[in-house]
Amino acid sequence: MTRFVTKEKLSRLYDELESIGIDILYLTDWEENRNVNVKYLSGIPEDANLFIDVQNRQTVLIPRDFQLAEKYAEVDQLIDIAEFEGGVEPATSETLKHISSSKPKIGVLKEIPYHRVKTVREQVPDADIVFNPKEIDSLLNNLRSTKSSYEITLLKKSIKISNQLVDEMEDILTSENEIKNEVDLAIFVETQMRKLGAQGVGFETMVASSARSWQIHTYPRADPKVPLYRPGLALIDFGVDAEGYTSDVTLPFIVGSMNKKMKTIVETVQQAHDEAINALKDKHFLHDIAKVAFNIIETAGFKMPHGLGHGIGLTVHDSPFIRRKPTHEPLLKNWIDTELEEGMVFTIEPGIYEKDVGGFRLENDVIITAKGAEIVTNSHPIFIDLL
Amino acid sequence: MTRFVTKEKLSRLYDELESIGIDILYLTDWEENRNVNVKYLSGIPEDANLFIDVQNRQTVLIPRDFQLAEKYAEVDQLIDIAEFEGGVEPATSETLKHISSSKPKIGVLKEIPYHRVKTVREQVPDADIVFNPKEIDSLLNNLRSTKSSYEITLLKKSIKISNQLVDEMEDILTSENEIKNEVDLAIFVETQMRKLGAQGVGFETMVASSARSWQIHTYPRADPKVPLYRPGLALIDFGVDAEGYTSDVTLPFIVGSMNKKMKTIVETVQQAHDEAINALKDKHFLHDIAKVAFNIIETAGFKMPHGLGHGIGLTVHDSPFIRRKPTHEPLLKNWIDTELEEGMVFTIEPGIYEKDVGGFRLENDVIITAKGAEIVTNSHPIFIDLL
Repeated sequence: MTRFVTKEKLSRLYDELESIGIDILYLTDWEENRNVNVKYLSGIPEDANLFIDVQNRQTVLIPRDFQLAEKYAEVDQLIDIAEFEGGVEPATSETLKHISSSKPKIGVLKEIPYHRVKTVREQVPDADIVFNPKEIDSLLNNLRSTKSSYEITLLKKSIKISNQLVDEMEDILTSENEIKNEVDLAIFVETQMRKLGAQGVGFETMVASSARSWQIHTYPRADPKVPLYRPGLALIDFGVDAEGYTSDVTLPFIVGSMNKKMKTIVETVQQAHDEAINALKDKHFLHDIAKVAFNIIETAGFKMPHGLGHGIGLTVHDSPFIRRKPTHEPLLKNWIDTELEEGMVFTIEPGIYEKDVGGFRLENDVIITAKGAEIVTNSHPIFIDLL
Repeated sequence: MTRFVTKEKLSRLYDELESIGIDILYLTDWEENRNVNVKYLSGIPEDANLFIDVQNRQTVLIPRDFQLAEKYAEVDQLIDIAEFEGGVEPATSETLKHISSSKPKIGVLKEIPYHRVKTVREQVPDADIVFNPKEIDSLLNNLRSTKSSYEITLLKKSIKISNQLVDEMEDILTSENEIKNEVDLAIFVETQMRKLGAQGVGFETMVASSARSWQIHTYPRADPKVPLYRPGLALIDFGVDAEGYTSDVTLPFIVGSMNKKMKTIVETVQQAHDEAINALKDKHFLHDIAKVAFNIIETAGFKMPHGLGHGIGLTVHDSPFIRRKPTHEPLLKNWIDTELEEGMVFTIEPGIYEKDVGGFRLENDVIITAKGAEIVTNSHPIFIDLL
C-alpha cells in the first residue's frame, strides 16, 4: 500500500495550509480516537501520529507498529518509538521540537484528543496552536470528498460485491431457507461477502427485524434471540470492505402484509429516495438535495432523525455529508455550503423510525461522474410473504 | 439493559469527584471518539454526551437516538436533541448552562475531543475546565478495573464460548478440513461463536498466517489471498461478545517443523506466559508481573513491542493495563502504581515479532478472585503437521 491521497492533492494541501499560515499540521489516529486522515495521507492502516510539515514540505510518521509502517506507509520520515521506551508522547514531543522553527503555528483538527494539545502546549511552549475547523478541517474534508480514479476503482470492487449480496439476499429471503433469526442473516451476508472476495465488513452488519427496526443503529447489531420473519418492517444495513474502501447499503424488507401506517412510511421513504436522486440532476448544493427528502418526509407528518446521506471511502462515514442547512444560530455558525462535484461518492438513505410501527430506511450509493449521478447499488424494498 | 456500574460505585464516584472539587464531569462517546465510560455509567450502547452532575447528584444524558436511550439508558435526565434541530452541541451547551452553578468546575477526561472543550469555554465562559488525568481519569479507570459479580457473569458467558472455539479450532486445524486461507478461519470462528450464542465479535477477528504474524495487529485483519497452512508461526486473535462484554484470546499455531530461531521464540513466549501467571500468586503490583515477562523476553535477546496485558470488559482494551514501569521521565510523570485486586479480569499475552521469522503470541484471560488468580481460558500452542 501507499498513501491514498494523490500527489496533486497533497501538494494542494501544503499550499493551502501555507496560505492560512500553518507551519505544521498535527494529526492523530488511535483506537479511541480514529481519524481517517492519517491513513489517507500516509497509507498506514491505523495507530499513528502524523505531522504534515509545511515549511519543509515533508510528512513525518510516528507509528505504534514500526514494522507495519515500513511495509505500508509512504512518508518522508518514520520515527521508531522503541527509541523512547515505546512512548508515543515523548517521541511526538521530540520530533515536533526537531522539525519546528521558533514559534511554530501548529494546526490541529477539531477531534484531536485534548491531552495531545496539552502535551504540545507543555513541551513546545512557544507554539501557537491553531484550532480553526472552518478552515483546517474543511481543507481535509474537501480533499477526501472527491475520490481519485484509483479510489473509485477500489470502491467499485466493494460495490460489485454489495450488489451480488443484494441479489443473493432477495433470492434467499423470498424462498425457503435456513435463516431463522437476525444473526443468521448477518452470518450469511458476512460469509458470502468474503467468498466473493471481501477482506471483511466495512462496519458491523446491522440486522433489525420488525421488533427493532425503529432503532437508527440497532443494538445489539444483530440479535440471535430475535426471529427474523416477524411481520412488519425489517432491514439489513451492511458494508463490504474489499480493499480498504467500503460500500454502505441498507436493504429493507417487508414481511407479510402492511397496515396503513406502514404503507405510508414505505411510500414516503421511497418517494424521498427517488426524488432526492432525481434532484442530483439539477441542484448545485448538497443541502438542497437533503431538503427535497426532508420536505417529503415532513409533509407526510414524519421526522428523519439523521442526515440524508454521507460520503463513503476509507471510512464508512466520510465527507461529504448530505444534510439540511440548519436554521439554529449555533449550528449555522459552523456551517459551510458544499457544492455537488465530480468524484463524490455518497449514500442516499432516507429513513423513518416509529417506535410502535417500525423503521424503514432505503439506502443506495451514488457516484458523481462527469456525465452526472450514477446510482451504483441496487437496493430496493423486498416483499416477503409469510407462510 | 441498565447501566453497568453498581450503585455503590456510582456513589463512590460522586464522593470522589466532590473531594477533588469537581462540580460536573463531562463525558462524550461518538463514532470517532469512543469512551466506554458513557456506556458503563449510563447503559446507553453508544453515541451520547453524559454529565455526572456532582452538585445535584444526578446523571444527564444527551443521546443521538432518543428512542434507543429510552430503552437502554438508566439516567436521571434524558435530553432530546430534536429540540435543538438535532444539534448535539447546542443541546449540550444549554443543558450545561441549566445544571451549572456559577463558576462551575467542569472535569474532562484526557481523550475528550478538543472542540468539545472549546465549545464549553465559549458557551460557559465562567467555567473552570479541569484536566487532571492522574486524578479524574484514574477515578474512572479504577471503577472499571474491578468487575462486579454481574459483570463477571457476563464475561464468563463470552469466556465459555471462547473455550469451545479453541477446542473446535484445535480439532479442525489438526484434521482434514475446508479451511484454506486466513479468511476461511475467520469465517469459521465468527460463524461458530454466533451458533454458540454470541451476539458478535468483541473486535475484528485477526488471522495471521506465518507470512504476516510479525504484525502486532495484522492488516488486513484476515486476508482472503493468503493461504493459512504456510510453514512457520501463525495465530488467530479473537474476542467473543456474548452480552456486551468481550473475551480476548490469541491461539498460536505452528505449521510444520520449526527452525532453531522459531523454537527459541516459542519457548521464550511460553516461559514468559507461564511465569507471569505464576507471578500473580505473590506480586502486589501489576508492573512487577509485567517485569517478569519482559525480563524473560529480553534476556533471550528479543523485544516485546506492547504491554503484557490489559483488562477486558465492555471494551476489549479496558483497565487495568499490565505494563512495565517506565524509566523515561515524561512517561514516569504520568505513571500510577496499580495493585492486583480481587475482581480484576485481564489478559496475559506475551509476544515476540520478528519480521524475517514470524510472530508468536500466547494470550489467556485471568480473573482475580478472593482465592487468587484463575486462568479462565484454554489457549495453548497447537502443532499442525504439514501433509
